[in-house]
Amino acid sequence: MYKVKVFVTLRESVLDPQGTVVKNSLHSMNYSEVSDVRIGKYMELTIKKSERPVEEAVKEMCERLLANVVIEDYRFEIEEAVAQ
Amino acid sequence: MYKVKVFVTLRESVLDPQGTVVKNSLHSMNYSEVSDVRIGKYMELTIKKSERPVEEAVKEMCERLLANVVIEDYRFEIEEAVAQ
Repeated sequence: MYKVKVFVTLRESVLDPQGTVVKNSLHSMNYSEVSDVRIGKYMELTIKKSERPVEEAVKEMCERLLANVVIEDYRFEIEEAVAQ
Repeated sequence: MYKVKVFVTLRESVLDPQGTVVKNSLHSMNYSEVSDVRIGKYMELTIKKSERPVEEAVKEMCERLLANVVIEDYRFEIEEAVAQ
């Protein structure tokens, strides 16, 4: 079993209106020290061992479904978990 | 300047319908090795140095705005960034 953590973020050049709203909310709550907020997605996948390498499978899942590679970047971390 | 990475995830006991949909989509794309998907939020905050400790400020922001602590857990990582 593997635990895979996937982070999907908007590319630097893409505007993040949701992040701007959160930043403005934080300012109105007196957290004026916050100068930028970017919002992304975080996914935890539990994956059973199979013939094909997990890195390859996860990369393909990201490209095909989990991230929109035109406007988003992704990265992932794979941890081997002890089966319970 | 600090770069703070905030991870907000649904508590274990809370159903994640969005995660179930992604899992089912992955199964229909022949990734049958995926046994669970949980979806959360990932936020990157850029915070200027101020008088109060950044850990304390970020904890408060999470509790008050970024996470719904009734159904979500949060954790964060603080990195000191070189001002540009």
